[in-house]
Amino acid sequence: MSDWFTLRWADGAVELLDQRRLPAEETYLTLHNVEDVARAIEDLAVRGAPAIGCAAALGVALAAAGSPADKPEGVRIDCLAAIERLARTRPTAVNLFWALGRMREVLEHACGAEGADADAVRAELVQQACALVDEDVAICRALGAAGVELVPDGARILTHCNAGALATAGWGTALGVVRSAVAAGRRVEVLADETRPFLQGARLTAWELARDDIPVTVITDNMAGHLIARGEVDLVLVGADRIARNGDVANKIGTYTVALLAREHAVPFYVAAPLSTIDLETPDGAAIPIEERGPAEVTHIGGQLVMPEGVPVRHPAFDVTPAALVSAIVTERGIARAPYASSLQVLFDTA
Amino acid sequence: MSDWFTLRWADGAVELLDQRRLPAEETYLTLHNVEDVARAIEDLAVRGAPAIGCAAALGVALAAAGSPADKPEGVRIDCLAAIERLARTRPTAVNLFWALGRMREVLEHACGAEGADADAVRAELVQQACALVDEDVAICRALGAAGVELVPDGARILTHCNAGALATAGWGTALGVVRSAVAAGRRVEVLADETRPFLQGARLTAWELARDDIPVTVITDNMAGHLIARGEVDLVLVGADRIARNGDVANKIGTYTVALLAREHAVPFYVAAPLSTIDLETPDGAAIPIEERGPAEVTHIGGQLVMPEGVPVRHPAFDVTPAALVSAIVTERGIARAPYASSLQVLFDTA
Repeated sequence: MSDWFTLRWADGAVELLDQRRLPAEETYLTLHNVEDVARAIEDLAVRGAPAIGCAAALGVALAAAGSPADKPEGVRIDCLAAIERLARTRPTAVNLFWALGRMREVLEHACGAEGADADAVRAELVQQACALVDEDVAICRALGAAGVELVPDGARILTHCNAGALATAGWGTALGVVRSAVAAGRRVEVLADETRPFLQGARLTAWELARDDIPVTVITDNMAGHLIARGEVDLVLVGADRIARNGDVANKIGTYTVALLAREHAVPFYVAAPLSTIDLETPDGAAIPIEERGPAEVTHIGGQLVMPEGVPVRHPAFDVTPAALVSAIVTERGIARAPYASSLQVLFDTA
Repeated sequence: MSDWFTLRWADGAVELLDQRRLPAEETYLTLHNVEDVARAIEDLAVRGAPAIGCAAALGVALAAAGSPADKPEGVRIDCLAAIERLARTRPTAVNLFWALGRMREVLEHACGAEGADADAVRAELVQQACALVDEDVAICRALGAAGVELVPDGARILTHCNAGALATAGWGTALGVVRSAVAAGRRVEVLADETRPFLQGARLTAWELARDDIPVTVITDNMAGHLIARGEVDLVLVGADRIARNGDVANKIGTYTVALLAREHAVPFYVAAPLSTIDLETPDGAAIPIEERGPAEVTHIGGQLVMPEGVPVRHPAFDVTPAALVSAIVTERGIARAPYASSLQVLFDTA
């Protein structure tokens, strides 16, 4: 884990590992303005709910640092424009809006402080964005530690998409639990759904687990049912892009199917996510906006057209897993179980 | 449909459309010996249970036609070697063994006929292989006609893999039902799972339906659950590689998952297959051999590595859908429903 990073603030710029090019190339992008950060989020150079939140916070910091204003109000206007732009990048992962909301609070507080000056506001926003990134790693480590009890020794763990260090500022959510279990001495084997269309499982989960010498085997998404039915999976661990108040979970397309298979075969289905992914304002899954992305990620793989020219495709990027299929939700404050309406609220109340 | 064909006997050779190159290229292979036919089956140049059976029959005809023997017994020995070789190509689709069994009967009958000579045996085997291919199209048309009643006007039909004209000598099984429904004036929309790893849905189903101007939309396999859950699928129609006596269905990997999703959302799940796919000798799905193929089709797409070098993969090519999830099985002799142990037997008895 020490020889690479997902994203960071460095020398007045945002550096992030370009996840579109993994695993073939480890290339870092250096982003100097908000528009570049917004496009990196839209184009999936950075993805994963917590990482998107961190990238957005760093994007606001960039706007602050780059603001030419000499009065706090000028910095404020530039930052609000940045927040507005970043909020339009992707609709489903609530961490984006959570991080932008937090940066906005920081902004308003800094601008409203007695004797505020533009430089102090700039510095405060950069510092708080960096703190949010550091905090994300700490949260993942706490979440991972909380989840260890769910992972028996020898567990064969199925995961979908990438909810790893690459989806966060480090350590990961679902893969954070895996890493914490391994750190605690548990032997595990991870089965990674390749996760079409963008292949986050094959490209990213396999890459980061192999880097950490955690055994990983890749399957196509449609093989999970066969292997679960044959008893080759002991538990499922996935991340989340947004968890509604009632425990419904929006996550990468295909997650719902895995959850249904798990229930059919009495395999526990666990969701690992920080509290910033839980959106108490959203009553249930039906209220979660599901992003429909463009056709190119479906029609092409590695730049190559894989179907007849002109045939239409669908591209819902997420689906909703009903709370009834979720065995537990692992957070940095512990494990919630059904009924989630009360158990999730309890986690928030024990701040 | 008239400007291309799946496979045929022509001028003492076997010609077949190379399905590995579709949809980018329409290239026909001309095969002159049994080994080439065996490799075309192993390498998926031709695939789909009925088409594999037809290719194997034509392979035996090639062995007969190419046998230099001047006595029937010499032709017989060459044909038996061909049958033995072809039987080792792929284990799951029972049509292969059915077709080889039929060719063996033809062979033994021709060799045992009074006054048999080598040329007559050769001619008989070629003629019978061609008859088997023609019969396959007729069976698909009868099967399609039988299935029309299952397709309401306006139906949104989900299919998995390719059970079309490309998987048979023509017309198709699941897509044969679609074609027959369209011919009967029903409006339909087909949703095609892309069907990793070999992308038979994206490459083949989309190609042949687009050729016939039947509306088709491609999705990644993991999107089916989302769309079924949202009520965007009226029925599922798939083919089969082997149906056991109790109605368990082996079909392309991922089929079981689609069947489970269909049951969860009260969407009918139909299997379309000729009687030659039904194997009364196999008691249930657990007794069906599931082919595990090599890693390259999973690790690479279009020749391009899509995951880190050296990460292991699994590649079960088929899965088993329990009979309990199958709403009906459509055959050329009509529709069977549960309990399949008796309803399938009835179809065989009404010869």
